[in-house]
Amino acid sequence: MSEEKKFFKSAFSVDPVIFGFDQGDLKVLLIKRGVQPFKDQWALPGDLVYPNEDLDSAAGRVLGELTGLKDVYLEQVHTFGKVGRHPLGRVITIAYYSLIKIDNFEFTPASLASHVEWHDISTIKELAFDHMPILKTCFDKLKWKIRSYPVGFELLPKKFTLTELQKVYEAILEKELDKRNFRKKLLSTKLLTDLNESQKGVSHRPAKLYSFDTAKYEQLQSQGYNFEI
Amino acid sequence: MSEEKKFFKSAFSVDPVIFGFDQGDLKVLLIKRGVQPFKDQWALPGDLVYPNEDLDSAAGRVLGELTGLKDVYLEQVHTFGKVGRHPLGRVITIAYYSLIKIDNFEFTPASLASHVEWHDISTIKELAFDHMPILKTCFDKLKWKIRSYPVGFELLPKKFTLTELQKVYEAILEKELDKRNFRKKLLSTKLLTDLNESQKGVSHRPAKLYSFDTAKYEQLQSQGYNFEI
Repeated sequence: MSEEKKFFKSAFSVDPVIFGFDQGDLKVLLIKRGVQPFKDQWALPGDLVYPNEDLDSAAGRVLGELTGLKDVYLEQVHTFGKVGRHPLGRVITIAYYSLIKIDNFEFTPASLASHVEWHDISTIKELAFDHMPILKTCFDKLKWKIRSYPVGFELLPKKFTLTELQKVYEAILEKELDKRNFRKKLLSTKLLTDLNESQKGVSHRPAKLYSFDTAKYEQLQSQGYNFEI
Repeated sequence: MSEEKKFFKSAFSVDPVIFGFDQGDLKVLLIKRGVQPFKDQWALPGDLVYPNEDLDSAAGRVLGELTGLKDVYLEQVHTFGKVGRHPLGRVITIAYYSLIKIDNFEFTPASLASHVEWHDISTIKELAFDHMPILKTCFDKLKWKIRSYPVGFELLPKKFTLTELQKVYEAILEKELDKRNFRKKLLSTKLLTDLNESQKGVSHRPAKLYSFDTAKYEQLQSQGYNFEI
Protein backbone atom coordinates (compact mmCIF):
# COMPACT_ATOMS: atom_id res chain seq x y z
CA MET A 1 0.00 0.00 0.00
CA SER A 2 2.66 2.54 1.02
CA GLU A 3 4.49 2.14 -2.28
CA GLU A 4 1.32 3.32 -4.03
CA LYS A 5 0.97 6.47 -1.91
CA LYS A 6 3.24 8.57 -4.06
CA PHE A 7 0.83 8.11 -6.96
CA PHE A 8 -2.21 9.48 -5.12
CA LYS A 9 -1.23 13.14 -5.40
CA SER A 10 -2.78 14.06 -8.72
CA ALA A 11 -5.99 15.66 -9.85
CA PHE A 12 -7.98 15.59 -13.06
CA SER A 13 -10.25 18.01 -14.77
CA VAL A 14 -12.75 18.00 -17.61
CA ASP A 15 -12.55 20.56 -20.41
CA PRO A 16 -15.62 20.73 -22.60
CA VAL A 17 -15.36 22.43 -25.98
CA ILE A 18 -18.89 23.81 -26.39
CA PHE A 19 -19.82 24.38 -30.03
CA GLY A 20 -22.71 26.53 -31.17
CA PHE A 21 -23.82 27.87 -34.53
CA ASP A 22 -25.02 31.37 -35.31
CA GLN A 23 -25.43 33.40 -38.49
CA GLY A 24 -23.39 30.99 -40.55
CA ASP A 25 -20.46 30.82 -38.13
CA LEU A 26 -19.25 28.02 -35.89
CA LYS A 27 -18.82 29.38 -32.36
CA VAL A 28 -16.99 28.17 -29.26
CA LEU A 29 -17.98 29.16 -25.74
CA LEU A 30 -14.99 30.61 -23.87
CA ILE A 31 -14.56 32.08 -20.41
CA LYS A 32 -12.24 34.90 -19.46
CA ARG A 33 -10.49 33.68 -16.33
CA GLY A 34 -11.06 35.86 -13.27
CA VAL A 35 -8.42 34.09 -11.14
CA GLN A 36 -4.84 32.86 -11.38
CA PRO A 37 -3.35 30.97 -13.10
CA PHE A 38 -3.83 32.56 -16.54
CA LYS A 39 -5.92 35.41 -15.05
CA ASP A 40 -7.59 37.59 -17.74
CA GLN A 41 -6.91 35.04 -20.49
CA TRP A 42 -9.56 33.24 -22.50
CA ALA A 43 -9.91 29.53 -21.74
CA LEU A 44 -12.18 26.55 -22.18
CA PRO A 45 -14.71 26.41 -19.32
CA GLY A 46 -13.22 23.40 -17.52
CA ASP A 47 -13.19 22.42 -13.88
CA LEU A 48 -11.58 19.91 -11.53
CA VAL A 49 -13.48 16.65 -11.04
CA TYR A 50 -14.73 16.01 -7.48
CA PRO A 51 -13.46 12.88 -5.72
CA ASN A 52 -16.95 11.33 -5.77
CA GLU A 53 -17.92 12.40 -9.28
CA ASP A 54 -17.87 10.39 -12.53
CA LEU A 55 -16.14 11.95 -15.53
CA ASP A 56 -19.22 12.31 -17.73
CA SER A 57 -21.12 13.76 -14.77
CA ALA A 58 -18.40 16.35 -14.21
CA ALA A 59 -18.50 17.43 -17.85
CA GLY A 60 -22.29 17.65 -17.67
CA ARG A 61 -22.07 19.66 -14.44
CA VAL A 62 -19.70 22.24 -15.97
CA LEU A 63 -21.98 22.58 -18.97
CA GLY A 64 -25.10 22.83 -16.80
CA GLU A 65 -23.61 25.42 -14.45
CA LEU A 66 -22.62 27.59 -17.37
CA THR A 67 -25.66 27.27 -19.61
CA GLY A 68 -28.50 25.87 -17.50
CA LEU A 69 -28.85 23.11 -20.12
CA LYS A 70 -29.27 19.42 -19.35
CA ASP A 71 -29.19 16.37 -21.59
CA VAL A 72 -27.25 18.02 -24.40
CA TYR A 73 -24.91 16.29 -26.82
CA LEU A 74 -21.63 15.59 -25.00
CA GLU A 75 -18.87 13.23 -26.06
CA GLN A 76 -15.48 12.38 -24.59
CA VAL A 77 -12.66 12.96 -27.08
CA HIS A 78 -9.15 12.64 -25.68
CA THR A 79 -7.15 12.94 -22.46
CA PHE A 80 -4.28 15.42 -22.25
CA GLY A 81 -1.69 14.83 -19.57
CA LYS A 82 1.72 16.30 -20.30
CA VAL A 83 3.86 16.76 -17.20
CA GLY A 84 3.84 20.45 -16.26
CA ARG A 85 0.69 21.37 -18.21
CA HIS A 86 -0.90 22.82 -15.04
CA PRO A 87 0.86 25.17 -12.59
CA LEU A 88 -0.92 23.83 -9.47
CA GLY A 89 0.42 20.29 -9.72
CA ARG A 90 -0.11 17.18 -11.80
CA VAL A 91 -3.47 17.62 -13.45
CA ILE A 92 -4.54 15.66 -16.48
CA THR A 93 -7.63 16.75 -18.32
CA ILE A 94 -10.30 14.82 -20.17
CA ALA A 95 -11.53 16.78 -23.19
CA TYR A 96 -15.17 16.61 -24.29
CA TYR A 97 -17.09 18.36 -26.98
CA SER A 98 -20.68 19.44 -26.82
CA LEU A 99 -23.13 20.69 -29.45
CA ILE A 100 -25.85 23.08 -28.34
CA LYS A 101 -28.52 25.32 -29.82
CA ILE A 102 -27.36 28.87 -29.15
CA ASP A 103 -30.90 30.27 -28.75
CA ASN A 104 -31.59 27.95 -25.88
CA PHE A 105 -29.94 29.60 -22.92
CA GLU A 106 -28.40 32.46 -21.02
CA PHE A 107 -24.99 32.31 -19.39
CA THR A 108 -24.33 31.92 -15.71
CA PRO A 109 -20.65 32.80 -15.39
CA ALA A 110 -18.92 30.28 -13.13
CA SER A 111 -17.02 31.49 -10.09
CA LEU A 112 -13.65 31.44 -11.82
CA ALA A 113 -14.82 33.37 -14.88
CA SER A 114 -15.16 37.11 -15.24
CA HIS A 115 -16.84 36.88 -18.67
CA VAL A 116 -18.42 34.18 -20.80
CA GLU A 117 -18.64 34.72 -24.54
CA TRP A 118 -19.15 32.98 -27.85
CA HIS A 119 -16.12 33.31 -30.14
CA ASP A 120 -15.97 32.56 -33.86
CA ILE A 121 -13.72 29.52 -34.05
CA SER A 122 -11.68 31.13 -36.84
CA THR A 123 -10.74 34.07 -34.57
CA ILE A 124 -9.36 32.02 -31.66
CA LYS A 125 -5.56 32.26 -31.75
CA GLU A 126 -4.50 31.85 -28.12
CA LEU A 127 -5.95 30.19 -25.04
CA ALA A 128 -4.82 29.48 -21.47
CA PHE A 129 -3.07 26.20 -20.53
CA ASP A 130 -2.86 23.72 -23.44
CA HIS A 131 -6.40 24.61 -24.51
CA MET A 132 -5.40 25.39 -28.13
CA PRO A 133 -4.40 21.77 -28.95
CA ILE A 134 -7.45 20.57 -27.01
CA LEU A 135 -9.69 22.79 -29.14
CA LYS A 136 -8.01 21.57 -32.33
CA THR A 137 -8.40 17.90 -31.39
CA CYS A 138 -12.09 18.37 -30.60
CA PHE A 139 -12.69 20.33 -33.80
CA ASP A 140 -11.01 17.54 -35.81
CA LYS A 141 -13.26 15.01 -34.11
CA LEU A 142 -16.34 17.08 -34.98
CA LYS A 143 -15.22 17.34 -38.63
CA TRP A 144 -15.08 13.56 -38.82
CA LYS A 145 -18.24 13.01 -36.79
CA ILE A 146 -20.48 15.26 -38.85
CA ARG A 147 -19.78 13.20 -41.98
CA SER A 148 -20.50 9.87 -40.33
CA TYR A 149 -23.30 10.66 -37.88
CA PRO A 150 -26.25 13.07 -38.06
CA VAL A 151 -24.95 15.34 -35.27
CA GLY A 152 -25.15 18.62 -37.22
CA PHE A 153 -28.82 18.93 -36.31
CA GLU A 154 -27.88 19.39 -32.64
CA LEU A 155 -26.66 22.88 -33.56
CA LEU A 156 -29.92 23.98 -35.25
CA PRO A 157 -33.44 24.75 -34.02
CA LYS A 158 -35.91 21.86 -34.39
CA LYS A 159 -37.22 23.40 -37.62
CA PHE A 160 -34.57 24.43 -40.10
CA THR A 161 -34.08 25.16 -43.78
CA LEU A 162 -31.78 23.17 -46.07
CA THR A 163 -29.66 26.31 -46.50
CA GLU A 164 -29.13 26.55 -42.73
CA LEU A 165 -28.15 22.89 -42.61
CA GLN A 166 -25.67 23.34 -45.46
CA LYS A 167 -24.13 26.30 -43.64
CA VAL A 168 -23.56 24.13 -40.56
CA TYR A 169 -21.68 21.61 -42.70
CA GLU A 170 -19.70 24.32 -44.47
CA ALA A 171 -18.71 26.01 -41.20
CA ILE A 172 -17.50 22.74 -39.68
CA LEU A 173 -15.78 21.36 -42.79
CA GLU A 174 -14.35 24.81 -43.57
CA LYS A 175 -15.23 24.60 -47.25
CA GLU A 176 -18.07 25.44 -49.60
CA LEU A 177 -20.28 22.57 -50.71
CA ASP A 178 -22.15 22.22 -53.96
CA LYS A 179 -25.79 23.05 -53.19
CA ARG A 180 -27.36 20.51 -55.55
CA ASN A 181 -25.16 17.62 -54.46
CA PHE A 182 -25.60 18.44 -50.80
CA ARG A 183 -29.40 18.50 -51.03
CA LYS A 184 -29.48 15.32 -53.07
CA LYS A 185 -27.34 13.46 -50.53
CA LEU A 186 -29.29 14.79 -47.57
CA LEU A 187 -32.74 14.09 -49.01
CA SER A 188 -31.67 10.61 -50.14
CA THR A 189 -31.10 9.65 -46.48
CA LYS A 190 -34.90 10.04 -46.07
CA LEU A 191 -34.24 11.26 -42.54
CA LEU A 192 -35.56 14.78 -43.11
CA THR A 193 -39.27 15.40 -42.59
CA ASP A 194 -40.80 18.04 -44.84
CA LEU A 195 -42.95 20.02 -42.38
CA ASN A 196 -45.10 21.67 -45.07
CA GLU A 197 -44.27 25.00 -43.45
CA SER A 198 -42.19 27.94 -44.59
CA GLN A 199 -39.99 30.43 -42.80
CA LYS A 200 -41.78 33.46 -41.39
CA GLY A 201 -40.61 37.06 -41.08
CA VAL A 202 -37.70 36.84 -43.52
CA SER A 203 -36.96 39.49 -46.12
CA HIS A 204 -36.10 36.98 -48.88
CA ARG A 205 -38.43 34.35 -50.36
CA PRO A 206 -39.38 32.05 -47.42
CA ALA A 207 -37.72 28.63 -47.61
CA LYS A 208 -39.29 25.32 -46.62
CA LEU A 209 -38.77 24.01 -43.12
CA TYR A 210 -37.59 20.51 -42.26
CA SER A 211 -36.98 18.53 -39.09
CA PHE A 212 -34.69 15.57 -38.44
CA ASP A 213 -36.41 12.23 -37.86
CA THR A 214 -34.50 10.92 -34.82
CA ALA A 215 -36.77 7.93 -34.25
CA LYS A 216 -36.34 6.75 -37.82
CA TYR A 217 -32.56 7.20 -37.65
CA GLU A 218 -32.35 5.15 -34.46
CA GLN A 219 -34.42 2.40 -36.01
CA LEU A 220 -32.28 2.33 -39.17
CA GLN A 221 -29.09 2.45 -37.12
CA SER A 222 -30.16 -0.62 -35.11
CA GLN A 223 -30.44 -2.41 -38.48
CA GLY A 224 -26.85 -1.52 -39.38
CA TYR A 225 -27.50 1.61 -41.43
CA ASN A 226 -24.54 4.01 -41.75
CA PHE A 227 -25.21 7.72 -42.15
CA GLU A 228 -22.72 9.30 -44.53
CA ILE A 229 -22.52 12.77 -46.08
CA MET B 1 -4.71 27.01 -3.10
CA SER B 2 -6.01 25.19 0.02
CA GLU B 3 -9.45 24.75 -1.55
CA GLU B 4 -7.81 22.81 -4.35
CA LYS B 5 -5.98 20.42 -2.00
CA LYS B 6 -8.88 18.00 -1.70
CA PHE B 7 -8.62 17.35 -5.43
CA PHE B 8 -4.96 16.31 -5.39
CA LYS B 9 -5.56 12.85 -3.92
CA SER B 10 -6.12 10.84 -7.07
CA ALA B 11 -4.02 8.66 -9.30
CA PHE B 12 -4.26 7.56 -12.90
CA SER B 13 -3.18 4.52 -14.80
CA VAL B 14 -2.80 3.42 -18.39
CA ASP B 15 -4.32 0.17 -19.63
CA PRO B 16 -3.06 -0.95 -23.02
CA VAL B 17 -5.06 -3.56 -24.92
CA ILE B 18 -2.31 -5.33 -26.85
CA PHE B 19 -3.60 -7.07 -29.98
CA GLY B 20 -1.68 -9.75 -31.86
CA PHE B 21 -2.60 -12.15 -34.64
CA ASP B 22 -1.71 -15.82 -34.87
CA GLN B 23 -3.03 -18.76 -36.92
CA GLY B 24 -6.11 -16.87 -38.03
CA ASP B 25 -7.12 -15.70 -34.56
CA LEU B 26 -7.07 -12.24 -33.00
CA LYS B 27 -5.27 -12.42 -29.66
CA VAL B 28 -5.08 -10.14 -26.63
CA LEU B 29 -2.14 -10.12 -24.22
CA LEU B 30 -3.34 -10.64 -20.64
CA ILE B 31 -1.56 -10.96 -17.33
CA LYS B 32 -2.62 -13.10 -14.43
CA ARG B 33 -2.38 -10.84 -11.40
CA GLY B 34 0.06 -12.06 -8.72
CA VAL B 35 -1.02 -9.48 -6.14
CA GLN B 36 -4.18 -8.02 -4.60
CA PRO B 37 -6.56 -6.59 -5.64
CA PHE B 38 -7.98 -9.18 -8.05
CA LYS B 39 -5.15 -11.64 -7.27
CA ASP B 40 -5.13 -14.68 -9.63
CA GLN B 41 -7.53 -13.02 -12.08
CA TRP B 42 -6.71 -12.17 -15.68
CA ALA B 43 -6.35 -8.48 -16.43
CA LEU B 44 -5.04 -6.00 -18.96
CA PRO B 45 -1.36 -5.25 -18.29
CA GLY B 46 -1.84 -1.69 -16.99
CA ASP B 47 0.17 0.32 -14.49
CA LEU B 48 -0.04 3.57 -12.53
CA VAL B 49 1.46 6.61 -14.24
CA TYR B 50 4.46 8.16 -12.45
CA PRO B 51 4.15 11.80 -11.32
CA ASN B 52 6.79 12.89 -13.84
CA GLU B 53 5.66 10.72 -16.74
CA ASP B 54 3.55 11.67 -19.78
CA LEU B 55 0.56 9.46 -20.59
CA ASP B 56 1.82 8.14 -23.93
CA SER B 57 5.22 7.47 -22.35
CA ALA B 58 3.60 5.46 -19.57
CA ALA B 59 1.67 3.34 -22.07
CA GLY B 60 4.89 2.80 -24.05
CA ARG B 61 6.77 1.89 -20.87
CA VAL B 62 4.22 -0.78 -19.88
CA LEU B 63 4.36 -2.24 -23.37
CA GLY B 64 8.16 -2.13 -23.46
CA GLU B 65 8.59 -3.73 -20.03
CA LEU B 66 6.31 -6.57 -21.01
CA THR B 67 7.45 -7.27 -24.56
CA GLY B 68 10.81 -5.58 -25.03
CA LEU B 69 9.32 -3.79 -28.05
CA LYS B 70 9.74 -0.10 -28.81
CA ASP B 71 8.08 2.14 -31.38
CA VAL B 72 5.05 -0.06 -31.89
CA TYR B 73 1.59 1.07 -32.91
CA LEU B 74 -0.08 2.60 -29.85
CA GLU B 75 -3.17 4.81 -29.77
CA GLN B 76 -5.15 6.38 -26.96
CA VAL B 77 -8.82 5.35 -27.05
CA HIS B 78 -10.89 6.44 -24.05
CA THR B 79 -10.63 7.32 -20.36
CA PHE B 80 -12.59 5.32 -17.80
CA GLY B 81 -13.19 6.94 -14.45
CA LYS B 82 -16.23 5.66 -12.58
CA VAL B 83 -16.13 6.38 -8.85
CA GLY B 84 -15.23 3.15 -7.04
CA ARG B 85 -13.71 1.39 -10.07
CA HIS B 86 -10.44 0.81 -8.15
CA PRO B 87 -10.24 -0.51 -4.57
CA LEU B 88 -7.11 1.53 -3.64
CA GLY B 89 -8.69 4.95 -4.11
CA ARG B 90 -9.76 7.22 -6.92
CA VAL B 91 -7.94 5.96 -9.99
CA ILE B 92 -9.02 6.82 -13.51
CA THR B 93 -7.47 4.90 -16.36
CA ILE B 94 -6.56 5.91 -19.87
CA ALA B 95 -7.12 3.02 -22.29
CA TYR B 96 -4.82 2.49 -25.28
CA TYR B 97 -4.64 -0.17 -27.92
CA SER B 98 -1.54 -1.50 -29.53
CA LEU B 99 -0.94 -3.72 -32.57
CA ILE B 100 2.14 -5.93 -32.56
CA LYS B 101 3.67 -8.76 -34.54
CA ILE B 102 3.47 -11.82 -32.30
CA ASP B 103 6.71 -13.39 -33.61
CA ASN B 104 8.70 -10.39 -32.52
CA PHE B 105 9.22 -10.87 -28.82
CA GLU B 106 9.34 -12.86 -25.63
CA PHE B 107 7.51 -11.90 -22.46
CA THR B 108 9.06 -10.36 -19.41
CA PRO B 109 6.33 -10.72 -16.80
CA ALA B 110 6.00 -7.47 -14.83
CA SER B 111 6.32 -7.52 -11.07
CA LEU B 112 2.57 -7.66 -10.45
CA ALA B 113 1.95 -10.53 -12.87
CA SER B 114 2.40 -14.24 -12.22
CA HIS B 115 1.77 -15.20 -15.87
CA VAL B 116 1.55 -13.44 -19.22
CA GLU B 117 -0.37 -15.11 -22.01
CA TRP B 118 -2.04 -14.49 -25.35
CA HIS B 119 -5.78 -15.21 -25.25
CA ASP B 120 -8.13 -15.60 -28.20
CA ILE B 121 -10.37 -12.55 -27.96
CA SER B 122 -13.45 -14.72 -28.43
CA THR B 123 -12.63 -16.72 -25.28
CA ILE B 124 -12.27 -13.77 -22.88
CA LYS B 125 -15.38 -13.65 -20.70
CA GLU B 126 -14.20 -12.06 -17.44
CA LEU B 127 -11.40 -9.70 -16.43
CA ALA B 128 -10.32 -7.83 -13.29
CA PHE B 129 -11.50 -4.26 -12.56
CA ASP B 130 -13.60 -2.77 -15.40
CA HIS B 131 -11.27 -4.29 -17.98
CA MET B 132 -14.08 -6.02 -19.92
CA PRO B 133 -15.73 -2.73 -21.04
CA ILE B 134 -12.25 -1.32 -21.70
CA LEU B 135 -11.45 -4.29 -23.94
CA LYS B 136 -14.76 -3.93 -25.75
CA THR B 137 -14.28 -0.20 -26.37
CA CYS B 138 -10.77 -0.77 -27.76
CA PHE B 139 -11.95 -3.66 -29.95
CA ASP B 140 -14.75 -1.47 -31.35
CA LYS B 141 -12.19 1.23 -32.12
CA LEU B 142 -9.99 -1.29 -33.93
CA LYS B 143 -12.97 -2.54 -35.98
CA TRP B 144 -13.57 1.01 -37.18
CA LYS B 145 -9.89 1.82 -37.63
CA ILE B 146 -9.03 -1.16 -39.82
CA ARG B 147 -11.60 -0.08 -42.42
CA SER B 148 -10.39 3.52 -42.58
CA TYR B 149 -6.62 3.22 -42.09
CA PRO B 150 -4.10 0.58 -43.20
CA VAL B 151 -3.33 -0.62 -39.67
CA GLY B 152 -3.98 -4.32 -40.27
CA PHE B 153 -0.44 -4.70 -41.59
CA GLU B 154 0.95 -3.94 -38.13
CA LEU B 155 -0.23 -7.40 -37.07
CA LEU B 156 1.55 -9.27 -39.89
CA PRO B 157 5.19 -10.01 -40.76
CA LYS B 158 6.71 -7.63 -43.33
CA LYS B 159 6.06 -10.18 -46.06
CA PHE B 160 2.57 -11.65 -46.11
CA THR B 161 0.12 -13.40 -48.40
CA LEU B 162 -3.26 -11.97 -49.41
CA THR B 163 -4.92 -14.87 -47.56
CA GLU B 164 -3.15 -13.90 -44.34
CA LEU B 165 -4.23 -10.30 -44.77
CA GLN B 166 -7.83 -11.33 -45.39
CA LYS B 167 -7.75 -13.44 -42.23
CA VAL B 168 -6.64 -10.40 -40.21
CA TYR B 169 -9.65 -8.46 -41.51
CA GLU B 170 -12.01 -11.37 -40.89
CA ALA B 171 -10.77 -11.88 -37.34
CA ILE B 172 -11.19 -8.19 -36.46
CA LEU B 173 -14.51 -7.66 -38.25
CA GLU B 174 -15.78 -11.03 -36.99
CA LYS B 175 -17.22 -12.02 -40.34
CA GLU B 176 -16.19 -13.82 -43.52
CA LEU B 177 -15.30 -11.64 -46.50
CA ASP B 178 -15.70 -12.48 -50.14
CA LYS B 179 -12.23 -13.40 -51.41
CA ARG B 180 -12.55 -11.87 -54.87
CA ASN B 181 -13.99 -8.57 -53.64
CA PHE B 182 -11.44 -8.29 -50.88
CA ARG B 183 -8.47 -8.82 -53.24
CA LYS B 184 -9.91 -6.44 -55.79
CA LYS B 185 -10.35 -3.67 -53.19
CA LEU B 186 -6.93 -4.23 -51.67
CA LEU B 187 -5.03 -4.35 -54.94
CA SER B 188 -6.90 -1.30 -56.25
CA THR B 189 -5.34 0.79 -53.44
CA LYS B 190 -1.99 0.15 -55.21
CA LEU B 191 -0.37 0.12 -51.77
CA LEU B 192 0.71 -3.51 -51.89
CA THR B 193 4.06 -4.34 -53.44
CA ASP B 194 4.27 -7.68 -55.23
CA LEU B 195 7.63 -9.03 -54.00
CA ASN B 196 7.98 -11.62 -56.78
CA GLU B 197 8.56 -14.20 -54.07
CA SER B 198 6.52 -17.12 -52.83
CA GLN B 199 5.99 -18.74 -49.45
CA LYS B 200 8.55 -21.37 -48.49
CA GLY B 201 8.12 -24.54 -46.48
CA VAL B 202 4.36 -24.77 -46.72
CA SER B 203 2.51 -28.01 -47.45
CA HIS B 204 -0.02 -26.36 -49.81
CA ARG B 205 0.74 -24.57 -53.09
CA PRO B 206 3.00 -21.60 -52.11
CA ALA B 207 1.20 -18.24 -52.33
CA LYS B 208 2.71 -14.96 -53.50
CA LEU B 209 4.19 -12.60 -50.94
CA TYR B 210 3.41 -8.89 -50.67
CA SER B 211 4.54 -6.00 -48.53
CA PHE B 212 2.76 -2.77 -47.61
CA ASP B 213 4.17 0.40 -49.16
CA THR B 214 4.24 2.75 -46.14
CA ALA B 215 6.13 5.54 -47.94
CA LYS B 216 3.60 5.63 -50.77
CA TYR B 217 0.68 5.63 -48.32
CA GLU B 218 2.15 8.56 -46.38
CA GLN B 219 2.67 10.48 -49.60
CA LEU B 220 -0.90 9.80 -50.78
CA GLN B 221 -2.29 10.65 -47.36
CA SER B 222 -0.56 14.04 -47.39
CA GLN B 223 -2.44 14.69 -50.64
CA GLY B 224 -5.80 13.96 -48.97
CA TYR B 225 -6.15 10.28 -49.95
CA ASN B 226 -8.51 8.22 -47.77
CA PHE B 227 -7.82 4.53 -47.35
CA GLU B 228 -11.05 2.57 -47.22
CA ILE B 229 -11.77 -1.17 -47.25
